[in-house]
Amino acid sequence: MNDPNGLVFFKGIWHLYYQYNPLELVAGHQAWGHAVSTDLLHWKHLPIAIPEMTSGPVTGQIFTGSAVVDNNNTSGFFNGVPGGGLVAIYTLNEPTKEVQNVAYSLDGGTSYIEYKGNPVLDLQNPNFRDPKVFWYAPGHSWIMAVALPRAHQVLFYGSSDLKNWSFLSAFGPAGIEGFQYECPNLFQVPVQGTNDKKWVLVVAINPGAPVGGSINEYFVGNFDGTTFTADDGVARLMDFGKDFYAVQTYNNTPNGEAIAVGWMSNWQYTQDVPTFPWRGVFTVPRFLSLRQNPTQTGAVLVQTPLSLSSLRDKTLFNGATTISPDSPLTISSQGSSSFEFRTTVVGGDKGRLNINIRNGAGEQVTVGVDWDHDGQVYVNRGQTAGFSNPYFTNDFSTWESNLDHSIELHALVDRSVLEVFVDDGVQVCTSSFFMRNGPPTEMQWQAENSTVLVEHLEAYSLKSIWR
Amino acid sequence: MNDPNGLVFFKGIWHLYYQYNPLELVAGHQAWGHAVSTDLLHWKHLPIAIPEMTSGPVTGQIFTGSAVVDNNNTSGFFNGVPGGGLVAIYTLNEPTKEVQNVAYSLDGGTSYIEYKGNPVLDLQNPNFRDPKVFWYAPGHSWIMAVALPRAHQVLFYGSSDLKNWSFLSAFGPAGIEGFQYECPNLFQVPVQGTNDKKWVLVVAINPGAPVGGSINEYFVGNFDGTTFTADDGVARLMDFGKDFYAVQTYNNTPNGEAIAVGWMSNWQYTQDVPTFPWRGVFTVPRFLSLRQNPTQTGAVLVQTPLSLSSLRDKTLFNGATTISPDSPLTISSQGSSSFEFRTTVVGGDKGRLNINIRNGAGEQVTVGVDWDHDGQVYVNRGQTAGFSNPYFTNDFSTWESNLDHSIELHALVDRSVLEVFVDDGVQVCTSSFFMRNGPPTEMQWQAENSTVLVEHLEAYSLKSIWR
Repeated sequence: MNDPNGLVFFKGIWHLYYQYNPLELVAGHQAWGHAVSTDLLHWKHLPIAIPEMTSGPVTGQIFTGSAVVDNNNTSGFFNGVPGGGLVAIYTLNEPTKEVQNVAYSLDGGTSYIEYKGNPVLDLQNPNFRDPKVFWYAPGHSWIMAVALPRAHQVLFYGSSDLKNWSFLSAFGPAGIEGFQYECPNLFQVPVQGTNDKKWVLVVAINPGAPVGGSINEYFVGNFDGTTFTADDGVARLMDFGKDFYAVQTYNNTPNGEAIAVGWMSNWQYTQDVPTFPWRGVFTVPRFLSLRQNPTQTGAVLVQTPLSLSSLRDKTLFNGATTISPDSPLTISSQGSSSFEFRTTVVGGDKGRLNINIRNGAGEQVTVGVDWDHDGQVYVNRGQTAGFSNPYFTNDFSTWESNLDHSIELHALVDRSVLEVFVDDGVQVCTSSFFMRNGPPTEMQWQAENSTVLVEHLEAYSLKSIWR
Repeated sequence: MNDPNGLVFFKGIWHLYYQYNPLELVAGHQAWGHAVSTDLLHWKHLPIAIPEMTSGPVTGQIFTGSAVVDNNNTSGFFNGVPGGGLVAIYTLNEPTKEVQNVAYSLDGGTSYIEYKGNPVLDLQNPNFRDPKVFWYAPGHSWIMAVALPRAHQVLFYGSSDLKNWSFLSAFGPAGIEGFQYECPNLFQVPVQGTNDKKWVLVVAINPGAPVGGSINEYFVGNFDGTTFTADDGVARLMDFGKDFYAVQTYNNTPNGEAIAVGWMSNWQYTQDVPTFPWRGVFTVPRFLSLRQNPTQTGAVLVQTPLSLSSLRDKTLFNGATTISPDSPLTISSQGSSSFEFRTTVVGGDKGRLNINIRNGAGEQVTVGVDWDHDGQVYVNRGQTAGFSNPYFTNDFSTWESNLDHSIELHALVDRSVLEVFVDDGVQVCTSSFFMRNGPPTEMQWQAENSTVLVEHLEAYSLKSIWR
């Protein structure tokens, strides 16, 4: 599987559709897979919601799109259905072009019925995809953001009924354009410390990330119902690693929260990674907010993962300590390969802290804090033997120095994936890793050249979400 | 040494000043070192041109700046000197602030006399540096581009005499802003296939490159004597590697060519690399032009290295061949660790070509062409044992796919540095590498999974420029 699709909250259920090939372990025969949850944490697999169209006058793969709750029956699909229902808007990848299609569900999202008037948008263009649709209350209308990948543009359309769409405006080329734009998302995000919200436009780039392959960039600004205007010309990235792509935010969240799920891989190597008999994994859902960043201009996205406290099993460490170069601290995960830690570490003008997440066979992924370089944080996944590839970059580091000697880290480790949130999630590294001789079972905290004060550290093993 | 400074052509001599610490192998005690050339290829070392100011009422390091030919004696420094002389404009890094200073040379650039009215610009700001000054003929004035690093801005000033400067405009924040902006450069570049020129604004970012640490980005647009206006909001990078920074272009070139020299390192690791008893190296000078890129919007910079044909020693290969997976082609450099090759390689829908630049001990740097990924080119420097560091990233790849099956590469190899020009220099990777057991002495051309047609390959060993 790859891109998350149709993220929507409806009647107490969080729906997670996703790009899914039911026939192979590589992309192809794309359909919408489906999982549901009542807490965004425990998921239940459901059958394919929208299958590939393989017969009939029109054939094609079901590419990325979104889902909305049409509770006022603007579409007319829900005559006599109290509370309306879900409508999916997605790209049909036909042999010679990509068009935007609509389908609706009369069973709460389990299956979809194709709208007979499809396609709802057709530019006769082989590259035109990934509609994100949402309800824009001030204009009493539906808004679609959809990519013209090779033109490096996001097009905005408006509709009153989800069937008839009018062109509103175009954004781009802007920022890092790469080879193509995909998966645009436009949503509102609360500004920390205020009651305000601002609009954020996310664009997925692939290939063409500066670190190689796939990445999400974003622009902060305003949307007036017709046009998105960025506050500045700055191109900002959501991740300093290489495994965070095609992020999408939930529609219809209870309190208007911006909750994002990303795909944890990179097209440069995703079809080769050694995870047989499956391929593809999502991030933990992340709550987005904006913060004025002291070392940058404008507001930057802050990503806060959903709390995993209900999954905590054993307390692996809870307290403060000091780590000197000659006495590393080793923390066993007590048999679990899923664990998390939060810490505040304080260094001096020199030295490094390496947090080596490792198995018993010498393979490790390192999260490092470097006071020799003004508090940069780095992630290295090179000391693992499970996978190599010309694009499987080993080394990542934060873009910004942290001019404070005190650094906060929050890390989630789950067998072959790592999510590191630096300074409350102002900078994030999402990284897959592949150990040959078993998943990580301990952490070694190792100070280099200087003693490090661990002002606070809590670490927990995590229970599986699967029974 | 680090940044190139004061690049100027004057009376048949190419001057290359540079940031130089005469006392240590790390940055500090910065002065302007000096080398000269009549062909941009063979260089002669000269004494320090502008030393650190260590005594007197004002002290400070001589940071980056530029040099101009004041042939009309606009400054008044050259009364009675036919043809005028060189004026250097640079940042004085004082203990509490950075100011812009001016000095002039009455001996053709060997030594400089400080202007008594210094500083010529003082914002009482500890971060205000790296003036690039040039003559703007349409306005009969001098223009300065100078960085406000933490504000992510380039300020433009104008002057008639190089002493009194008036604020004109500010550019930024824009593009990838990183932690700070440094070393702005504004210059005209010919547009390929036309008689037009466009303006290019280069900004150096450090730290904060998406690949980590130091990088140059650029904007293409227009300068009207007061304001630089970018054609679009796209952030473009000059290199897909990690060792190209603080690029500066020559002033006063004979035919108005845009000739650039960059520093081949990265602040994330430059102070640690194992090149004792020296540190710091420049790229081969590169001629810049602009080309409309078929896979991107707008014009992109094309970098063409100065021809090294006069340095060619032995012909290592010249012709065409076919490489099948079971029979790699090995080309000895015949005893030299400096060599170049140009090639046009043609693959199919699948497979890779790895050009392994290696020594006899199994250490190698790979330049790869990947038809499995639409013709992306990658560089891997991980199979070398001479240096490791959390930021010494191993893997780099082009941002754009090459949708053509035919790919051109031009590579310059010199002991511990590699410059790879892809598709005539539309994409460039500048990369240092450090082999423990001696520099490279051969190339192994190895096809993976498919036969590769080498339509053309010429390879030469290169003579040293030093007697």
